[in-house]
Amino acid sequence: MQPNLQLGAPLLEKLTAHQRSGARSFHVPGHKSGAGLDPAAVDYYKDVLSLDLTEIPGLDDLHHPEEAIQEAQRLAAECFGAEETFFLIGGSTVGNMAMIAASCRKGDLLLVQRDAHKSVLHGLMLAGARAVFLTPLWDEETGLSHGVHPDTVEAALERYPEAKGLLITNPSYYGVSRDLTPLAELLHEQGKLLLVDEAHGAHFGFHEQVPSSALAAGADAVVQSSHKMLTAMTMGAMLHLQGSRIRRDAVRRALAMLQSSSPSYPILGSLDWTRRLMAVSGRERIEAVLQAAGQFSTYLKSQERWTVSRANPALGGHQDPLKLVLSDSTGSLGGFQLKELLEGRGVYAELADPRHVLLALGLGTTQEDITALITALKNIAVEEHESGRPPIGQPIPERTEWDVVSEPISLDWENALHGDKAHLIIPLSACAGYRVAQMIVPYPPGIPFLYPGERITIEQQTYLVELARVGCRFHGHDVAATGTVPVWDE
Amino acid sequence: MQPNLQLGAPLLEKLTAHQRSGARSFHVPGHKSGAGLDPAAVDYYKDVLSLDLTEIPGLDDLHHPEEAIQEAQRLAAECFGAEETFFLIGGSTVGNMAMIAASCRKGDLLLVQRDAHKSVLHGLMLAGARAVFLTPLWDEETGLSHGVHPDTVEAALERYPEAKGLLITNPSYYGVSRDLTPLAELLHEQGKLLLVDEAHGAHFGFHEQVPSSALAAGADAVVQSSHKMLTAMTMGAMLHLQGSRIRRDAVRRALAMLQSSSPSYPILGSLDWTRRLMAVSGRERIEAVLQAAGQFSTYLKSQERWTVSRANPALGGHQDPLKLVLSDSTGSLGGFQLKELLEGRGVYAELADPRHVLLALGLGTTQEDITALITALKNIAVEEHESGRPPIGQPIPERTEWDVVSEPISLDWENALHGDKAHLIIPLSACAGYRVAQMIVPYPPGIPFLYPGERITIEQQTYLVELARVGCRFHGHDVAATGTVPVWDE
Repeated sequence: MQPNLQLGAPLLEKLTAHQRSGARSFHVPGHKSGAGLDPAAVDYYKDVLSLDLTEIPGLDDLHHPEEAIQEAQRLAAECFGAEETFFLIGGSTVGNMAMIAASCRKGDLLLVQRDAHKSVLHGLMLAGARAVFLTPLWDEETGLSHGVHPDTVEAALERYPEAKGLLITNPSYYGVSRDLTPLAELLHEQGKLLLVDEAHGAHFGFHEQVPSSALAAGADAVVQSSHKMLTAMTMGAMLHLQGSRIRRDAVRRALAMLQSSSPSYPILGSLDWTRRLMAVSGRERIEAVLQAAGQFSTYLKSQERWTVSRANPALGGHQDPLKLVLSDSTGSLGGFQLKELLEGRGVYAELADPRHVLLALGLGTTQEDITALITALKNIAVEEHESGRPPIGQPIPERTEWDVVSEPISLDWENALHGDKAHLIIPLSACAGYRVAQMIVPYPPGIPFLYPGERITIEQQTYLVELARVGCRFHGHDVAATGTVPVWDE
Repeated sequence: MQPNLQLGAPLLEKLTAHQRSGARSFHVPGHKSGAGLDPAAVDYYKDVLSLDLTEIPGLDDLHHPEEAIQEAQRLAAECFGAEETFFLIGGSTVGNMAMIAASCRKGDLLLVQRDAHKSVLHGLMLAGARAVFLTPLWDEETGLSHGVHPDTVEAALERYPEAKGLLITNPSYYGVSRDLTPLAELLHEQGKLLLVDEAHGAHFGFHEQVPSSALAAGADAVVQSSHKMLTAMTMGAMLHLQGSRIRRDAVRRALAMLQSSSPSYPILGSLDWTRRLMAVSGRERIEAVLQAAGQFSTYLKSQERWTVSRANPALGGHQDPLKLVLSDSTGSLGGFQLKELLEGRGVYAELADPRHVLLALGLGTTQEDITALITALKNIAVEEHESGRPPIGQPIPERTEWDVVSEPISLDWENALHGDKAHLIIPLSACAGYRVAQMIVPYPPGIPFLYPGERITIEQQTYLVELARVGCRFHGHDVAATGTVPVWDE
């Protein structure tokens, strides 16, 4: 790294210099730095609106960068270990879509970790690619996904040697990651791509207590949500590339097609200063959060009610220490209830599942935040002890063995959009054996559970019944509220 | 309208209430309201970061709205005259793409005004739709596009009765609009859709001196950039629907596929308060800008150097008074030069073409802005008078006639992305009969003359030769300078 250059933030500096110059705007946006706007909004918006500019001279052009944005992206590439970095203003969503579109032509086959973000599926649809879904390892004890084992990838490559590569999600939403080096070696030996949705791991590699990054393991393309664990504004993300296996011109064109022609400069500027923060003090920032988290560990050891689940090293899992997967060891409180009780005390979690509450720390997390969390948990422990609620069961559907490598699935953009393929609505309790007609997406975390065209197994039916029973919600067709599943009428 | 409800801003209120509650964030984004961030950024970002939240309870879900976002969208629909409104966080870009994807299946045919925004072209590619391009009227004197004449649409519908509808851009970037009622009637009589890219016209209908809106004319779907002429943050836009011709469920699904799964709450909140601003004081805000613009009209009349071009009523054009199309009546300064001279004096224009500088006013424009503009122009007039530059020529090609209704064109996503279709470079004088391999865009007027895949007619070749003869310039491949055209090798 070039420390002197990393001290700068070329795009932020251009933005603030323009703001300070007193320039008069006869260009979009129409708020013209927010003069005289809505009084209730102005306190919150006025300062950032003064940087909400457009492609005027000096501010470069995201879709054709030659000046400040190019330089900011170059510094980001250096900081995160890429050869080329694209700033994204449409979130990891657009990064996943562009990465796939640049890698797959119509009909091409891609190996895809099953618990992929929905944007991966949308990317497959847009590209017209076929997916072979690989079931990840699961920890039976915690229910946490542990990513795809190299043996699974090897088996899939043997069965589908025409595959363009593998797309994985690492770390998981819950902060479980695995060492990607064996996967990268396996794929690269066969000239195939390793594409990584590292949305939740933009901080990886910046501290010895967090896992190393996908780029360090040799991934060809890596998408990071710079807003999730780092400090960019929401929708700020990066797509990092290295090597010559992925076509950079196609990535560039895909991003120009899929992203706004009026990119948000506040978001772009926040990517620039987030990169600077990481380059200058990334390790110290993470260290500070780990110190704060240490206070929570101390509390955890002092009591027996609350436990934190971690990645299982026996399954190859490494735990991101910035993700706390909390649960009630008595089984009395499910994840959704505990999340609500925390909210009632001003502590807002990232998500809940039937068993866990996921707490996401970030570079902005403070000692005071952790103290508030501990206080809330102490109070809940006292009150819920006194309430004497009976413990609810937390049955995890019994997992039977099934083929971890799916058949090739063509996800159909037309049917996804227009949904007019003939289908039946059948009771949830009798859906096994049918091909599901829509994506089934319990949320949070919003990860697709079944893809259109997949035949539902009895094990999957059992799990859906359980999710519905504990009150999980669903994107799209609400399996829980309706007690039904849409399936193809064949 | 329900005035009492329009006084509220339900989403902004939820965001600010959450901010004031002192809630502790254990969710994304990682900046946690910006505590302790980059000191150089914190002044600009801190306040808005406190609203940069995520889908926690009370803040609803853009992709599944049931509470504050749903209510904010309902109020926006009422305010702008739609039946249903979708907030967009990917700009008009994503609105155009979703509108097309919801209207066209693979192979469907859509009539499209030839001078469309590139997102329209990308939308056609994603949908796999075929486009019949309709050449707009343009004013020979000013070079300004005046939209598509109903006779052209009628002729196109006769030739292609299978067309799903018409997509037009109204107003133009330069603020020229036409009455859309005849188009809506013509299309609706045949059960076809009128889709309007009204990106530059979100203020239409709020004052008697600005044109009326596309929704008032009966358009089925209308995309507005709420950041361009109104006061939302950049990338904030709306897609308005009315009637039953467009499938709302398909629009919803397309937006969920194409937009970030982590939408920016600051952008969403700014859509909410921008709607309130328009509902409560839209007319007065526009009146204030018109008053400021009146000062500029007075100045214009007092001198002879600078002129403002306006829409030509004889061609059915109405001029948006918030767009000033400025030029040098002496011909001494071209648009690019004048724009640069203005920038040297702290006045930043929206764009320039060889002849004009386009100045975009907005609801945030102040008297002081206009005064600064006048001062700059006065100084330039004095200094440039003294410089004694010779006037530059304004090439006016002899108009030849060609078919204003194209053949159906399939814009190919794969080729656009991967660009590997073989092509030849052939002499301009021998290009008729070939299919052009790149967009050919002479400017002025900057209206795409040919799209990739269009077969060049002998009349079009003649016109291109004439354009080259008079020294017209071209975006992308410069037909005039090279005397060649890139065509497909078939």
